[in-house]
Amino acid sequence: MRKMYGIALALCFYLPQQLQAQEEKVDLATIEKIKQEGLQHSQVMDIAFHLTDVSGARLTASPGFNRAGNYAVQQLTQWGLTDAKLDPWGEFGKGWELQKSYVALTAPYYRPLIAYPKAWCSGTNGAVNAQVILVTAKDSTELLQYKGKLAGKIIITERADTVKLGFKADGSRYTDEQLAKMAGAKLEPTDTAAMRRRREMFMRGNGAMRTLTLLKEMARAEGAAAILSSGAKNQDGTLFTQGGGGYKATDPENFTDVMLGAEDYNTILRLVKAGMPVKLDMDIQTKFHTADTKGYNVIAEIKGTDPKLKDEVVMLGGHLDSWHTATGATDNAAGCAVMMEALRILKTLGVHPRRTIRIGLWSGEEEGLLGSRGYVKKTFADPANMQLLPAHEKFSSYFNIDNGTGKIRGIYLQGNEACGPIFTKWLEPFHDLGATTVTVGNTGGTDHQSFDAVGLPGFQFIQDPMEYDARTHHSNMDSYDHLSPDDMKQIATIVAGFVYNAAQRDAKLPRKELPKPRPAGGMF
Amino acid sequence: MRKMYGIALALCFYLPQQLQAQEEKVDLATIEKIKQEGLQHSQVMDIAFHLTDVSGARLTASPGFNRAGNYAVQQLTQWGLTDAKLDPWGEFGKGWELQKSYVALTAPYYRPLIAYPKAWCSGTNGAVNAQVILVTAKDSTELLQYKGKLAGKIIITERADTVKLGFKADGSRYTDEQLAKMAGAKLEPTDTAAMRRRREMFMRGNGAMRTLTLLKEMARAEGAAAILSSGAKNQDGTLFTQGGGGYKATDPENFTDVMLGAEDYNTILRLVKAGMPVKLDMDIQTKFHTADTKGYNVIAEIKGTDPKLKDEVVMLGGHLDSWHTATGATDNAAGCAVMMEALRILKTLGVHPRRTIRIGLWSGEEEGLLGSRGYVKKTFADPANMQLLPAHEKFSSYFNIDNGTGKIRGIYLQGNEACGPIFTKWLEPFHDLGATTVTVGNTGGTDHQSFDAVGLPGFQFIQDPMEYDARTHHSNMDSYDHLSPDDMKQIATIVAGFVYNAAQRDAKLPRKELPKPRPAGGMF
Repeated sequence: MRKMYGIALALCFYLPQQLQAQEEKVDLATIEKIKQEGLQHSQVMDIAFHLTDVSGARLTASPGFNRAGNYAVQQLTQWGLTDAKLDPWGEFGKGWELQKSYVALTAPYYRPLIAYPKAWCSGTNGAVNAQVILVTAKDSTELLQYKGKLAGKIIITERADTVKLGFKADGSRYTDEQLAKMAGAKLEPTDTAAMRRRREMFMRGNGAMRTLTLLKEMARAEGAAAILSSGAKNQDGTLFTQGGGGYKATDPENFTDVMLGAEDYNTILRLVKAGMPVKLDMDIQTKFHTADTKGYNVIAEIKGTDPKLKDEVVMLGGHLDSWHTATGATDNAAGCAVMMEALRILKTLGVHPRRTIRIGLWSGEEEGLLGSRGYVKKTFADPANMQLLPAHEKFSSYFNIDNGTGKIRGIYLQGNEACGPIFTKWLEPFHDLGATTVTVGNTGGTDHQSFDAVGLPGFQFIQDPMEYDARTHHSNMDSYDHLSPDDMKQIATIVAGFVYNAAQRDAKLPRKELPKPRPAGGMF
Repeated sequence: MRKMYGIALALCFYLPQQLQAQEEKVDLATIEKIKQEGLQHSQVMDIAFHLTDVSGARLTASPGFNRAGNYAVQQLTQWGLTDAKLDPWGEFGKGWELQKSYVALTAPYYRPLIAYPKAWCSGTNGAVNAQVILVTAKDSTELLQYKGKLAGKIIITERADTVKLGFKADGSRYTDEQLAKMAGAKLEPTDTAAMRRRREMFMRGNGAMRTLTLLKEMARAEGAAAILSSGAKNQDGTLFTQGGGGYKATDPENFTDVMLGAEDYNTILRLVKAGMPVKLDMDIQTKFHTADTKGYNVIAEIKGTDPKLKDEVVMLGGHLDSWHTATGATDNAAGCAVMMEALRILKTLGVHPRRTIRIGLWSGEEEGLLGSRGYVKKTFADPANMQLLPAHEKFSSYFNIDNGTGKIRGIYLQGNEACGPIFTKWLEPFHDLGATTVTVGNTGGTDHQSFDAVGLPGFQFIQDPMEYDARTHHSNMDSYDHLSPDDMKQIATIVAGFVYNAAQRDAKLPRKELPKPRPAGGMF
């Protein structure tokens, strides 16, 4: 998951670096060993292989998630970590997996289609061959004209998606100019006009969404076979597919909703609009897992050794869950692999950290940071009431990776200005690896926010964008081959350095002011 | 199909343009009407819709090709063209179509795979679930160790294909600099050293190909289920797939050969190499059509009206056949649609050309320019003996489009320097549409070469590359949505102008020297 906001370009972010840098001590000899181990003897791609190719898709509570979680527990234990376990964080809902998906055009001619049922959808009633019907209704009144016409049909709706010819590269790295802009950013006051505009857009979208929900209810009631979907970026065989509705234990199964690429979707739409009979074969089987509806994170530790500091905790992590159409390599096996590798590096070097270092590989991130929120709530504080648990006081910081496979270029302070000079100093030994930038800006949409929401220092690194937005993020192409091994090694190395520094530092990292209780619980 | 060669950058190509331009007359009033009709009232995308979405894939001699051919004959007739017909050009071979293709990973977990059987392959023996076996043999001796081990298996071989992260845009248009280089090119003497290197590379490739052929023979003999393939550009869900072997009436069916993307291929390869059991579901049904093994082109005419010139012929065309995994939109429905549209424009304007204008929409181009070669051989001359038929003398010129959907930027002279000043003049009214460049260089790999091979002026236009190489050329993404409507309108307009000029010109277009007979028949 990724969202970035809150960065405005303005006056340079001034820090008394010279002064602070003198105060901030870094154990450069150990950092050098970390670099050696992380860059020359990396195992990060082997870890990534197990999290992707070997485990498969890791939808929360699915068998693939459990395979990856069990692998992580076993691997972390093998490296000598302590108390490695699948740790329940609360109620999630149903597991789900695809057991068969065959979708093909059969009239006016045969062609297999690239197609993915959305997660948590029902399958078809066995193998069906069904005619496609176009539904153009824009509201519940217009829907009435389709009453009694949907039985046995596959529904298609009007969409404005077009294929964009590829004159822009999928991937990029940050330029020096872009990094300089980030470094010069200052925190932006809340733009209420922009928020209002977003809310209005959301409400308009919501109207269409309500009509679609009604259509799906009608489709299910009348015994339609399925509905077809597409998306603005679905092209070239790269399809972005998420969930098809609720996953809670009490939610009903969602109506079969099948994602297509714009090329196929538009072909079907054009043919139907030209009055030509279009038929599809569909044979979709899905399975819901309801035996255990709890959600689990992977937790493991390297125990601290300093008598005064060993009960204090530095955390690192990323979400282990993914969407279901590939193996979630950049979102977010990458983040989990580098975090595991960071711990392997530290264990291999035999470091004895002063503070306890703890890894959290979260689940339910794609459904709303659920695993990390659950963990923070039970361990540190509930943002709804901000009643602090004892561990809140003992917490130093959390470092997260969830922006794909691109190497680290710096770190977001998340508004925690006091950490600026510290991280500036910590980055110095990594300048030769391209990591130089400290920005006061926020980055949102992932698990460091769960910590930030209860006033704990939670950070995410700045990573080169690579092809994350164009090709891999929530897509069927988010697989091992889209990982960049050299970037992965760099990330693991720098994370290991940051975590080590945080564990060794005399003081915990500075904090921002405690936030007020937010009963609504909104974190984004 | 596309290949470009023979362009060297050197001294500017000098032509006495001023002088020639004065002599070359252009009917600017009609050209202006052509531009109006072609740009303001275009039907080219409707034609493209029928050739792609409505007809489907157009593999030579397949039902899809026949649908498109029949549509073209009917549409050209409806516009008032004469003698529109499917014209046999000789023996082609078997038609082939895919009737079912379902391929999915079932162990270590389930995932549907993007997969395409190569053309002219057998299907599987019903629905099979088969284990994948890795064959690493590099020659016939090493193959022996797999003897007796292939029954019921799906074969995978080592491949070096990697996914390239997309730091380069898929698509481009020619820059002014590139066009200037083309304009300044001169014909290159044959580079025998380069030819030798290419031959050596081919022979090396041929060694691997021979081992693969032996492996497939062994696989079939032992009852293996299928073999997996991939390709250097197969990634992001875009797969480039051609034929799996012979298609002649006497050729046996080819062993089931299934193309995968690098992401899936490499996942399977890594898992197998790590010793993990990998299984696939495959259910592939293919159908061979053998009732009529002749090849057919679409031919139609606008009869000439000048008593002295009406038996002379100007031709325009492109190949109608495509590969089978999409609808061959840019290769080459685009070329056929613009040629048909060019004729529609001329018929709509009610022009009465002095010479006869004839369209040829070829088949068998993807198998080696077979349709246009067959047509040229029966109509004008056999390049093997160069005995000229009477129509050879009566032929003015042939204009071809087969480089995708990008607009015309100029024209290749194919070494016919005498046409330089003529085309320079003809392009003038189209400078505002971006078409300015005349290059003496060759472009190869498509049907104008069949004319060129018997000394007839055959030309192909310079087109903006767009995403042809990266995304559409022989791929499963070569579908209607990858066409650029504005570019298509421009192409049809300029082609109509060129064809009209060639039909009205007092003299036929100048020719190069007649080539010597080439008994081997090699045209590329």
